[in-house]
Amino acid sequence: KSWELNYREAAIFLEEGINNDKLTSHPSCHEALPAYLLVHNKWYYALDFAASLLLILLTFTEKPANPIFRLPVGVHSSMELMALVIVSVELIMKFRWVGFKIFIHHPRSMVKALTLLIMIAESIVVLVRQSSHFRVTRALRPIFLLDNHHFGGVRRYLRQVLQSVPPAIDMLGLLLFVILFYSVLGFYIFSSNVNDPYFSTLPQAFISLFILLTTANFPDVMMPSYAVTRWSSVFFITYLSIVLYFLMNLLLAAVYASFSSMEKNKFQQLLLHRRKAAQHAFRLLLSRSNRTGITLQHFRGLLRNVDPSRTYREVYLMFRLLNTSDSGIINVNEFYHIYDVLDMKWRIRDEEPFWFSRLRSRTLATVAQQVHRLVTWIFFDYFVCLVIFLGGILMLTRTAAISVHMSNPLELGVTWETYAFVSFYTLEACLKMFGMGFHVYFSSGWNCFDFAVTGVSVIGLAAEILGHWSFLVVARHSRILRVFKLRKRYRDVFGTVFILGQRLLCAGIVFLILYYAYSIVGMELFAEYDLTNCCKNSTVEANFRFENGSSSNGYYYLNNFENVISSYVTLFELTVINNWYIIMEGYAVTTTQWSRIYFMCFYLTIMILLSIVVASVLDGFMFRISYKEQMTKDDVESAEELSKEKLWYNWFARLRKQEPFRTLDEVTLDLPGIRPMSDVLLSFMYKDEISCWMKQADHEEKQQQPRNSPLKRVEIRQRQH
Amino acid sequence: KSWELNYREAAIFLEEGINNDKLTSHPSCHEALPAYLLVHNKWYYALDFAASLLLILLTFTEKPANPIFRLPVGVHSSMELMALVIVSVELIMKFRWVGFKIFIHHPRSMVKALTLLIMIAESIVVLVRQSSHFRVTRALRPIFLLDNHHFGGVRRYLRQVLQSVPPAIDMLGLLLFVILFYSVLGFYIFSSNVNDPYFSTLPQAFISLFILLTTANFPDVMMPSYAVTRWSSVFFITYLSIVLYFLMNLLLAAVYASFSSMEKNKFQQLLLHRRKAAQHAFRLLLSRSNRTGITLQHFRGLLRNVDPSRTYREVYLMFRLLNTSDSGIINVNEFYHIYDVLDMKWRIRDEEPFWFSRLRSRTLATVAQQVHRLVTWIFFDYFVCLVIFLGGILMLTRTAAISVHMSNPLELGVTWETYAFVSFYTLEACLKMFGMGFHVYFSSGWNCFDFAVTGVSVIGLAAEILGHWSFLVVARHSRILRVFKLRKRYRDVFGTVFILGQRLLCAGIVFLILYYAYSIVGMELFAEYDLTNCCKNSTVEANFRFENGSSSNGYYYLNNFENVISSYVTLFELTVINNWYIIMEGYAVTTTQWSRIYFMCFYLTIMILLSIVVASVLDGFMFRISYKEQMTKDDVESAEELSKEKLWYNWFARLRKQEPFRTLDEVTLDLPGIRPMSDVLLSFMYKDEISCWMKQADHEEKQQQPRNSPLKRVEIRQRQH
Ligand code: NA
Ligand code: NA
Repeated sequence: KSWELNYREAAIFLEEGINNDKLTSHPSCHEALPAYLLVHNKWYYALDFAASLLLILLTFTEKPANPIFRLPVGVHSSMELMALVIVSVELIMKFRWVGFKIFIHHPRSMVKALTLLIMIAESIVVLVRQSSHFRVTRALRPIFLLDNHHFGGVRRYLRQVLQSVPPAIDMLGLLLFVILFYSVLGFYIFSSNVNDPYFSTLPQAFISLFILLTTANFPDVMMPSYAVTRWSSVFFITYLSIVLYFLMNLLLAAVYASFSSMEKNKFQQLLLHRRKAAQHAFRLLLSRSNRTGITLQHFRGLLRNVDPSRTYREVYLMFRLLNTSDSGIINVNEFYHIYDVLDMKWRIRDEEPFWFSRLRSRTLATVAQQVHRLVTWIFFDYFVCLVIFLGGILMLTRTAAISVHMSNPLELGVTWETYAFVSFYTLEACLKMFGMGFHVYFSSGWNCFDFAVTGVSVIGLAAEILGHWSFLVVARHSRILRVFKLRKRYRDVFGTVFILGQRLLCAGIVFLILYYAYSIVGMELFAEYDLTNCCKNSTVEANFRFENGSSSNGYYYLNNFENVISSYVTLFELTVINNWYIIMEGYAVTTTQWSRIYFMCFYLTIMILLSIVVASVLDGFMFRISYKEQMTKDDVESAEELSKEKLWYNWFARLRKQEPFRTLDEVTLDLPGIRPMSDVLLSFMYKDEISCWMKQADHEEKQQQPRNSPLKRVEIRQRQH
Repeated sequence: KSWELNYREAAIFLEEGINNDKLTSHPSCHEALPAYLLVHNKWYYALDFAASLLLILLTFTEKPANPIFRLPVGVHSSMELMALVIVSVELIMKFRWVGFKIFIHHPRSMVKALTLLIMIAESIVVLVRQSSHFRVTRALRPIFLLDNHHFGGVRRYLRQVLQSVPPAIDMLGLLLFVILFYSVLGFYIFSSNVNDPYFSTLPQAFISLFILLTTANFPDVMMPSYAVTRWSSVFFITYLSIVLYFLMNLLLAAVYASFSSMEKNKFQQLLLHRRKAAQHAFRLLLSRSNRTGITLQHFRGLLRNVDPSRTYREVYLMFRLLNTSDSGIINVNEFYHIYDVLDMKWRIRDEEPFWFSRLRSRTLATVAQQVHRLVTWIFFDYFVCLVIFLGGILMLTRTAAISVHMSNPLELGVTWETYAFVSFYTLEACLKMFGMGFHVYFSSGWNCFDFAVTGVSVIGLAAEILGHWSFLVVARHSRILRVFKLRKRYRDVFGTVFILGQRLLCAGIVFLILYYAYSIVGMELFAEYDLTNCCKNSTVEANFRFENGSSSNGYYYLNNFENVISSYVTLFELTVINNWYIIMEGYAVTTTQWSRIYFMCFYLTIMILLSIVVASVLDGFMFRISYKEQMTKDDVESAEELSKEKLWYNWFARLRKQEPFRTLDEVTLDLPGIRPMSDVLLSFMYKDEISCWMKQADHEEKQQQPRNSPLKRVEIRQRQH
């Protein structure tokens, strides 16, 4: 019983290490453990995720909403209350087990608690009054989603983003000073020109130059004064050179510098945190008979709590891998590598190279072998690329021909070459699947891409015959991307996408959350206003004009905040920046001049965030470059192979060397371990630093040891049980 | 006589090392030396520079030209012919001394020769016909400027830019594929909508999406289809996400990666080239009696040819600095450092710290000392910053007040605070100059800035009293930049400007040259067309509308190619990208659709060039960051001090250690050497790599020695004289 509790606590320590949670945030006494376990399991994580997502999705049903999604106030506010209660369970439990004192020193929990209190109060008010009030606090709803267990990566990215903000803000200060300076100067120089509406007053000059910072009103802002004297172009050229080409690039550089220095720090902290967590777990697993290491029995007990799905064989393999000294017990230095082996996948190595080697029918096996030879032949690949390329050219010329005759391309119907190419691609996919076997075929990302594209074009063909969505046929030409793969530089680019993938996903989520917050505020402020035919006698009148059937409609009235989806599209348009001031102008004229603050703040936020995203793309790219430089060519052919083949080799060799291992059956010998890619890369890149950090941490701990020896503490804990 | 020739050839070798010229491009026999010397001296450099600049400036006087600059055809074409002849002198001389075979293998000379031939022929034709023909070859004129001795830095930068182009071109291929793909897709989906002019034909769809790549027609391009169905936004959002936010950033990353890897290579090559040049020079300076090193006598002979302005004392100091082994003769390893000492400035150290210490008048000296204490007092600086800040605020509120009453700010006249602040700043500058002495005052960049700003505001005040250019008074508020200096992060930024300075200058020159080429082509193609009230019934009609006195004029007809200055402004507008398509549309409607090629090419060129400039800014910034990381804090306070104080200390200490030095008078002991900043930084950053490169070069040379010993070759050369 007592050992079981120790295993559980050690498992919790390891999990806190993985999640980068504080090591103090779990129960201090065994009585509170059930509360902890209640909210730390995959079922609660899923429930919490569902509730947080529901809270966000509820926005679609709340007023102002698209008619098809709209729900009565009673329904959506009771759903909201329910979701809030589910979300607050974790917080209440946490409060129980960590106690008041630690709780109020944990910022994330405090923010969450405060937000929850406000939101529950507000949703009760809504439920009672049966109507919604001015609820901008809904903008805070993504907080619950971010706090979810599965959003740890996004949380870390967001923290990094927030840490990059101060240098950007500093540069913003300089930027605003230059704008202000030029506003005064511009007002002095140009305000006497009655034909120049851009500098008529000082606030107007500031707004014009703020918009000019985004280039959105250039060269229009210059033209009235340029018509008077050509010298006025000096004002605008110097302004843009300083602000746009110099300071904005410097802002990017400052953000990039801070971002790339942070990346290393973050990795170091995570590593040291995990080390600490492993230490805590280690102490709990020592027994009276083994004071210096963990036996297989206790290791197995730990693993049972960390990942119950592991078989004994896997646990044994992990133990052997960790136990590099081969002493039969894992000491603390060996135990530090627990995180490396924990998420390793084990797979029985296939002795037979091809799927058809196992076939009984000899003829089928021979045919399959011939097909395999064909599809792995290099010229087959070239031939397919050629066909793809020709298909693209044919498509282009045929579309150009339609375009000349101005007939509707959708009326063209299915032509012979559509059938021909779709059949060819289907045949190729089938041949490859048959020759390679499903497993090998789908283990290549390019084949998955081919398969998806071919599937879409088959669907497109069916749709075209039925007369709907025929443009899907165009999709098959995205296979031309395959042709790009032939060139080394493009392979590099696609390889970068692989490394950047997670980062771009996080960036995307951060953007969506930011959009969410701004769309809530935007809807509360602007949803009631209709911009159709607004802004008479202003410069943007033409953009908002709408007459039914007219061909000179500006359609800008569609860029509004009437529901969540419209708001998202409007915010995307503001993100693209071009002509964003027309939307701002529309609301400034229709509502009040102060509404500009909303749009200007959005621009500044987006500008900083975009710089950070660019910085993170650059950083990822440079990381790949320097990683490629550090690896010798013989080491690996590509990054993907490192995580599979290379590690497989290393560990396979290591396992073989350990003699006692032979007692297991031979199949087990061929189990290659596979670890996630990104960890391997980071460990590889910083391998020198890692050993340095570890030595330093060791040194610091040794200095503290006299006061608080780990062995002594272990004895004390042992006695407690 | 024979030694003198050796000295001269050694000096030429050293110069070729500095200029990164090929070591084979100088005379192989002594007879050709006069020809070489004729075109390698500062007088010819200046003449060549003047002629090249004249060639470019002639564009202002050639048709189409601003009336005030216009010259008769006979005058400007004879001036052109004259300038071309001056420029070709160097080439003819070079042809004489290097011979035909080496000449045709030297690409830069061949390009220059070909361009010269075409240009001379064309200018003779113009002179004979007395009228200019379609002369786009004038776009090549900057080649002569680039070939000038003083443009070595720009040449190197340009080479780096050109080497960064291939990765950018590759990404451009991917970009164009995506645009083409989306064009076909867009044509299929949207062409049936009669209200959507953007996708009516395939070429139109391509143009719309090309412009959308620059964001310049967003969201207008989306609105007609968005009005039909909200789903069409998916098309545009995915397109922009892929093209603008993903591929464009990847392009930047690819360029940045190639640029920053090149920076190191360039430095390495330059270093090894100089090493080789030093070797060649060294061999020429060995004598029969000293076969392993250079004596002071021969060193002095060398220096007489390298830099005749050096005094014997300076030469002696250089010799001592180089001769670290203190053996009295410089061996080859010591001689490799010749470039470090060559551009060193020597200055007698001032024993008396303040200028007033030398004063005879005791009262004046006491006053000066008190003033010195005042102006170097830290609170004096804070006080001045406070006054500057208050001045800025006061100016802002007063301007805002004028702005509210809508009176013309220029009619306001001189107010009391203008006098007050200008007097205060003048007083402050005078006090500082008096307290610190002119020399110390002007050695700080910030003081120079203050002085310039104060000077401009005094002129502004005078001008305001006279009633002209009173906006110059606003200039004094640029002193607020000084307030920014108080914050560390801004100091960093200004420090970066210091490092980036040369690079930004090179980038600026490259831009100006590119503009020049495009403006020549633009003028030849478009100068004859007037866009006023053009483009009836097109979407850009309103932009080109002009009625005298109307307030709704678009003024876009002013963005034309009627002379060089207008072309430059138009090209700058195209660089800023916003609304660039309106100018393109104007010319496409007025002339032919093919004119779009000019504008699209310009956009692509500018896009690549801007990415490269951004990459070089980023690289410079990161260089500074990593350089700051590598230096410990005690090492230096700021970059500037390194080049002066730090080096001074190092070398002062070294000089003291060398006992024979004491034979010189004591004053000489205190001569600190100062080297240019950028070299010091680079050497510092790559100090590990440098020693590695040097060892490798040594190793390679040793392997080649048996065949071709340097000592043997020296003997052979010695015998020739
Ligand atoms: Na625009
Ligand atoms: Na724009």
